[in-house]
Amino acid sequence: MKLIIAVVQDQDSNRLSNALVEHNFRATKLATTGGFLKSGNTTFMIGTDDARVEKALEIIRINCKARDQLVAPVSPMGGNADSYVPYPVEVEVGGATVFVLPIEQFLQF
Amino acid sequence: MKLIIAVVQDQDSNRLSNALVEHNFRATKLATTGGFLKSGNTTFMIGTDDARVEKALEIIRINCKARDQLVAPVSPMGGNADSYVPYPVEVEVGGATVFVLPIEQFLQF
Amino acid sequence: MKLIIAVVQDQDSNRLSNALVEHNFRATKLATTGGFLKSGNTTFMIGTDDARVEKALEIIRINCKARDQLVAPVSPMGGNADSYVPYPVEVEVGGATVFVLPIEQFLQF
Ligand code: NI
Ligand code: NI
Ligand code: NI
Repeated sequence: MKLIIAVVQDQDSNRLSNALVEHNFRATKLATTGGFLKSGNTTFMIGTDDARVEKALEIIRINCKARDQLVAPVSPMGGNADSYVPYPVEVEVGGATVFVLPIEQFLQF
Repeated sequence: MKLIIAVVQDQDSNRLSNALVEHNFRATKLATTGGFLKSGNTTFMIGTDDARVEKALEIIRINCKARDQLVAPVSPMGGNADSYVPYPVEVEVGGATVFVLPIEQFLQF
Repeated sequence: MKLIIAVVQDQDSNRLSNALVEHNFRATKLATTGGFLKSGNTTFMIGTDDARVEKALEIIRINCKARDQLVAPVSPMGGNADSYVPYPVEVEVGGATVFVLPIEQFLQF
């Protein structure tokens, strides 16, 4: 048994939850802030057999990998026209920081 | 030293806290959601000497073990009479998912 | 790699955050309650190379160590004059409970 602790961005949290359930992983979520990633993140604790650690990591990677996203320009109405960008800009979103910890005992009561 | 991480249902959380204090265990509680158990759960982190791990697990088991509970029927007033159950029903409540982790160092400042 | 879990008092949390950033440690914070310390504490999860564990522990110790603090007397206005203490009193504040856990894998996606 291993305990996987994964810190992911809030925007990827629901998708990751669904993907874990779909593949029969059970996770507990903690609301966390700052540090590893930009603020607004969620920490997942996932208990799993050794044999399925790689599968869990793959699911986290697929659903949370850092990637560039095109963000539509925001109209300068009510803002500063000087900072108006008239074309979509790329920003990096997502990303995950993952720890795999050994477990001495795993019990369910 | 070991670190025990226990995810329990909210309804058992206060009773477990009190039982741990009574037996001189010290715990930190995290509000957590979903996954291991029905939503609304609390995660306890309990640091303890190796010699007292079994005692801590026993306290968690006694206070949080999954069990059937009789729930009184709810009056159909204001609800759907078709779904009215005129006798108490058994529902499963409680339960705990517990990880025991090795600790390399334990310090208090 | 190690995972350091540190439970500290809320009043030391911001100072610790800043000191960790200043020394290039990355931490995730969890709001936690009770147990190891008086209620109102924050749990830091800090991932770090083995070589920097001692530095991280030193930063936690410096910023969170239990210490006596002089508290100014509170005016008895609106309170009970019998309990008025006309000179500063020393109270213990701060303190940290720290676990250092082994990590089998550390990944960033
Ligand atoms: Ni799949
Ligand atoms: Ni007892
Ligand atoms: Ni320094």
